[in-house]
Amino acid sequence: MARVEVRFAGFGGQGIGLMGRLVGEAVALYEKGKNSVMTQSYGPESRGGASSADVVIDTEEIDFPKATELDYFVVLSEEAYNKYIPKLKKGGILFVEENLVHLDDNANKAKQIFKIPATKIAETLGSKIFANIAMLGYVCANAKDIVSEEALVTVMKQKIKARYIEKNLIAFKKGKEYKQEG
Amino acid sequence: MARVEVRFAGFGGQGIGLMGRLVGEAVALYEKGKNSVMTQSYGPESRGGASSADVVIDTEEIDFPKATELDYFVVLSEEAYNKYIPKLKKGGILFVEENLVHLDDNANKAKQIFKIPATKIAETLGSKIFANIAMLGYVCANAKDIVSEEALVTVMKQKIKARYIEKNLIAFKKGKEYKQEG
Repeated sequence: MARVEVRFAGFGGQGIGLMGRLVGEAVALYEKGKNSVMTQSYGPESRGGASSADVVIDTEEIDFPKATELDYFVVLSEEAYNKYIPKLKKGGILFVEENLVHLDDNANKAKQIFKIPATKIAETLGSKIFANIAMLGYVCANAKDIVSEEALVTVMKQKIKARYIEKNLIAFKKGKEYKQEG
Repeated sequence: MARVEVRFAGFGGQGIGLMGRLVGEAVALYEKGKNSVMTQSYGPESRGGASSADVVIDTEEIDFPKATELDYFVVLSEEAYNKYIPKLKKGGILFVEENLVHLDDNANKAKQIFKIPATKIAETLGSKIFANIAMLGYVCANAKDIVSEEALVTVMKQKIKARYIEKNLIAFKKGKEYKQEG
């Protein structure tokens, strides 16, 4: 397997760091022979509410943990889209929260664009806080070389607070089964 | 300010990642003009229980998030000490959980070595799970160019689960006030 670079990004409160941690741990603990590194950057912009988490996955040791040419860009806010879309590699894959991100010309370089109303799906479960996990289910179902559902669900059960796990597992399933119209 | 590199390391279950996230966020959100990047690496060794989290702090933008020459090494297990002590820079500062880490010749290159029985302190509060925060209090009091107490406590109150926060704040205070004998 070649190196795979994934960036999750959105605004503060969307649980972007958790997405990165879940995927990073799931890969390393349960995907045989794969390493992963998760990086969270906090700059002055984090005071304005932007948030991002990179996961780099490789069968080799990962000497350079920073994502520089994204194979996958999973984005839950307009601001994060505008900031990081230049980093998506040509032929990369884009996942967007369709009601929070407005695509522009930069999206043309993506090989595939997956859209999901993750926040609305979460709201059917009572709170938009589940949007990150709905998105993660959608990513897991459609991005075959990131992480398996089994590994991710195992780590979710370990890391997510007991009182939230049930609804997160439903959000994950709804994301996983979501199909774009048309 | 020059770049500062900090590594937290120990075994799984000690809450090493949380130490990194608390410091990373506290620096970026509440220390004026400073950026930080937090990196968690998960390799095959993470299955064996090793855990580490790096925080790089700089007033400049951080292009290379990986810590390569540690200014500070905060270590809570023997295995992690043996693995990473070669990365401590000459004249760097070492913080050790004194009952879990046995120093060797490599420790001579440290300018200062701070020892604390963090796990025993945590156990006086009912559980060793507070050892990471006791250590963090000790680090905060003695490593002046990482992060302020005020910033760290603010972020702890936001990120630590409600039912654990009170004891964690006590653990932090005990660590902060701990003095080595002799």
